Amino acid sequence: MKGKPISRYPVPDLKTLPQDIQERISIVHEKSGFVPNVFLTLAHRPEEFRAFFTYHDALMEKDVGLTKAEREMIVVATSSLNQCQYCVVAHGAILRIRAKNPLVADQVATNYRKSDITPRQMAMLDFAVKVSRQSEEIGSVDFEALRAHGFSDEDIWDIGAISAFFALSNRMANLVNMRPNDEFYLMGRVPKA
Amino acid sequence: MKGKPISRYPVPDLKTLPQDIQERISIVHEKSGFVPNVFLTLAHRPEEFRAFFTYHDALMEKDVGLTKAEREMIVVATSSLNQCQYCVVAHGAILRIRAKNPLVADQVATNYRKSDITPRQMAMLDFAVKVSRQSEEIGSVDFEALRAHGFSDEDIWDIGAISAFFALSNRMANLVNMRPNDEFYLMGRVPKA
Amino acid sequence: MKGKPISRYPVPDLKTLPQDIQERISIVHEKSGFVPNVFLTLAHRPEEFRAFFTYHDALMEKDVGLTKAEREMIVVATSSLNQCQYCVVAHGAILRIRAKNPLVADQVATNYRKSDITPRQMAMLDFAVKVSRQSEEIGSVDFEALRAHGFSDEDIWDIGAISAFFALSNRMANLVNMRPNDEFYLMGRVPKA
Amino acid sequence: MKGKPISRYPVPDLKTLPQDIQERISIVHEKSGFVPNVFLTLAHRPEEFRAFFTYHDALMEKDVGLTKAEREMIVVATSSLNQCQYCVVAHGAILRIRAKNPLVADQVATNYRKSDITPRQMAMLDFAVKVSRQSEEIGSVDFEALRAHGFSDEDIWDIGAISAFFALSNRMANLVNMRPNDEFYLMGRVPKA
Amino acid sequence: MKGKPISRYPVPDLKTLPQDIQERISIVHEKSGFVPNVFLTLAHRPEEFRAFFTYHDALMEKDVGLTKAEREMIVVATSSLNQCQYCVVAHGAILRIRAKNPLVADQVATNYRKSDITPRQMAMLDFAVKVSRQSEEIGSVDFEALRAHGFSDEDIWDIGAISAFFALSNRMANLVNMRPNDEFYLMGRVPKA
Amino acid sequence: MKGKPISRYPVPDLKTLPQDIQERISIVHEKSGFVPNVFLTLAHRPEEFRAFFTYHDALMEKDVGLTKAEREMIVVATSSLNQCQYCVVAHGAILRIRAKNPLVADQVATNYRKSDITPRQMAMLDFAVKVSRQSEEIGSVDFEALRAHGFSDEDIWDIGAISAFFALSNRMANLVNMRPNDEFYLMGRVPKA
Repeated sequence: MKGKPISRYPVPDLKTLPQDIQERISIVHEKSGFVPNVFLTLAHRPEEFRAFFTYHDALMEKDVGLTKAEREMIVVATSSLNQCQYCVVAHGAILRIRAKNPLVADQVATNYRKSDITPRQMAMLDFAVKVSRQSEEIGSVDFEALRAHGFSDEDIWDIGAISAFFALSNRMANLVNMRPNDEFYLMGRVPKA
Repeated sequence: MKGKPISRYPVPDLKTLPQDIQERISIVHEKSGFVPNVFLTLAHRPEEFRAFFTYHDALMEKDVGLTKAEREMIVVATSSLNQCQYCVVAHGAILRIRAKNPLVADQVATNYRKSDITPRQMAMLDFAVKVSRQSEEIGSVDFEALRAHGFSDEDIWDIGAISAFFALSNRMANLVNMRPNDEFYLMGRVPKA
Repeated sequence: MKGKPISRYPVPDLKTLPQDIQERISIVHEKSGFVPNVFLTLAHRPEEFRAFFTYHDALMEKDVGLTKAEREMIVVATSSLNQCQYCVVAHGAILRIRAKNPLVADQVATNYRKSDITPRQMAMLDFAVKVSRQSEEIGSVDFEALRAHGFSDEDIWDIGAISAFFALSNRMANLVNMRPNDEFYLMGRVPKA
Repeated sequence: MKGKPISRYPVPDLKTLPQDIQERISIVHEKSGFVPNVFLTLAHRPEEFRAFFTYHDALMEKDVGLTKAEREMIVVATSSLNQCQYCVVAHGAILRIRAKNPLVADQVATNYRKSDITPRQMAMLDFAVKVSRQSEEIGSVDFEALRAHGFSDEDIWDIGAISAFFALSNRMANLVNMRPNDEFYLMGRVPKA
Repeated sequence: MKGKPISRYPVPDLKTLPQDIQERISIVHEKSGFVPNVFLTLAHRPEEFRAFFTYHDALMEKDVGLTKAEREMIVVATSSLNQCQYCVVAHGAILRIRAKNPLVADQVATNYRKSDITPRQMAMLDFAVKVSRQSEEIGSVDFEALRAHGFSDEDIWDIGAISAFFALSNRMANLVNMRPNDEFYLMGRVPKA
Repeated sequence: MKGKPISRYPVPDLKTLPQDIQERISIVHEKSGFVPNVFLTLAHRPEEFRAFFTYHDALMEKDVGLTKAEREMIVVATSSLNQCQYCVVAHGAILRIRAKNPLVADQVATNYRKSDITPRQMAMLDFAVKVSRQSEEIGSVDFEALRAHGFSDEDIWDIGAISAFFALSNRMANLVNMRPNDEFYLMGRVPKA
């Protein structure tokens, strides 16, 4: 599928990009072995690119309270309901890797209620989905339900903020018609040789 | 994940099943190398099992008008909107194999509008999704739209009937909490050695 | 209204149909005094016809657990939400007859929550409607609610499976534009002379 | 079914009602042979009763532009989507009588798109349903669509106002749990002897 | 914004209107200092005008059980969900005045769950919104919830009937494209000099 | 209303905040005469605060293609559908000021289709609302509709990105229960003395 457009918008030549963005992309390239299309497509607007990834990293690269795998579960569950192809495919891959579980991403993407996750994680996803789809109805009872599973208020902020951030991210991907890299589809499905 | 229950209901011992059902299962076992859980879980009710698979085969094993891959696309697109984990995972695998395309199933499952399919296939899925979600609004204009893409009225019956059959199938899977076999997740993703 | 088309698709001449289908139709003709259009319209595809009616009879002709009238209530309540004219009119007639109640079909069709039925039947319809409209959310609590009314797990399968089967049936009727026979409208409304 | 409560609220003794309301009820009693429950249940609040029936008559007893049968079609189509049992059953009866058609009420109640009505009436019901369910989206294009079928702007007011009035009526009936009289179910279904 | 049309329909010259309607309008003119457009636009149909305002006054000019400010809260909360510009702007003004609170109308209009109101008022609005949007599901539990807050059954009728009446009113305003008077926007926002 | 909590989460003491955040807040304080609560409540998480406002300013402080007032229209229209009280009240105020129009914010908040805006602005809001509520269905036809009104593809990115950013913002405000400052309600409604 090489050669398929990855965005409705022009994709900038890496060399023409500001230095800091080149570096950011170079780091992820080295780490992943390829450049995820979200970096190339959003680089069309460097200022928004910087804000997007700063926000993203603040929420997704933490390992306190929620594990990194749990953060990815939130992304996959909510992005699937928003029908964001890029986010489900790319973060599905990351979820498989971070959870060291080749099945959980497809499970959470189709129906998180029937996934191999803990009751605590189920409550986490119930909340995340409510923030994503009916945030106007979030109230104290929803907070109580999460506290009953041992989540702190800071954990709840994380859950809600990840759901909120991907509400933005899903819409940007749908807006620009962002195409997931072919590499994501197989990542985390087969044991590394 | 072996050992996880595959149904809310008792799963019959193969040997206790009627002869014809044993044979049906034995054929699929040989062909696939494992027994898909839909056979084991629905065998709880032999009479319904027979009707289910007769209906299924009448719609899915044809190769006239629609290709077999296109039939599977319909299953994946509609089952995903109905959040049927079994159908998306199992028929996603079959779609990958029949389309000889490791990406298309995940694409169709998250947002068929952004998939590597032809405009004709896109129109087919628009119709299938409308039958699945708002069949009360199906009218002549929907038929015209498909005819404009070269579909015959018999093809349209196939598209609608597959969508209708999986409206049943999705609900049965959600009712009994049918678990997809682990084998499906990787099928069709890597070239056979 | 004689002469109005009963399907978008060709309606086969009875004499050209396979023997078993002719017989099936002849039996219902004798019993009802007319041939319900679902038989004539679906006979366009004999193989699917056989699977459809085998499935139908397995679920609807039982009298264990749920009464036959209760099975028809499920059909009427869910078909009405799916706006299936054929199913509401035809099964409304059967419901009136099986329940020996000229009012209950119209009640259940417009708002089952306000019908002359028992609390147990109300719970049955709550479940059936959830399977029909949001089967992805069916979980243990829904099973518990029915068990509290004395339903066995086999009864619950029946309720869910009837709802699922008519999810298929409603979509087929809407697809082919199936017209209810004029005879159904008055059936069960007036005492037989 | 005699003896079933017809309202959640107290039903006033006819003799205790203000003179004008007694007269209004006496007229309908004479004309219909029974007192429709909407009169008895809403008489709980005489002032609102008067406004309700003045409004009702202003819209429903006209015979200019729309026929009386067409006015009832609007009531049945919109009340069915609002799941108002009283309105569907009672106005279904009136529709059968005014249209001199024993089938059309049940057709319009389940899916007006598949009823024995003219294309002009279909356009009328499309508009009425939009006013009932998404009035915020009504715009000039909707008016144009009706004008193309020969409706005047006064006719369009009638269509919209009837839909609006029964938006009120449906909610009142659901609020007080208004029970349709048993008499309505059979009215207009069999030729008068 | 003077000179903008206030209705899709002709607005009658005051002097040509029936005497009683002229008087009704003259009273509100004197009281408010201007004629709210709902009077001018609905006067196009004098008979419906009379019924509309009789009904309105019976529900809104009472001060028993619910305060007048609470009645306006119901109007604003439900009209906002129905996206009725006239009702939200005009009744928002009246709410500010009757509640002597310049903030509460905008709060209730955007998300009543986050407004400076009492838990009792919150329960009232939960019920009113359910009547407005899903009246078919109103049942005894909803009545119990209000009784627990000290509402009598007559109060509940008021809540439900106001919600029902504005279901009509919102649709009429959307139908005729009723424009709120410029005067409403600022009313009740600044202390009278 | 002073003294009401402005967030479910602790609101940091300004003096304890990082220098850059103190400065950012001090600038807005000077400009507005008060500190909008979004600054105080989001300062609970400095890193996310920085990303949020960088993103915000990149989209909202531009004056190319779309005017600043038009950007605020997008915020108000989409935030209202998401029932975000903070965003509707605060950005309603900014919209009034930037558009020099005391009416337009309340109009757009209740039903943008009936506002005193140009057809071009109407098309802009149609697109913004679609990105906000059904971004999965955004396709080439939506882009064409905007190009027909003279919008460039960069303008369309702006429209979509503002809608996407406030999808995040609305959810954060609903999550933390962000209270709009009392000052916003009156801003832009009365001419400055």
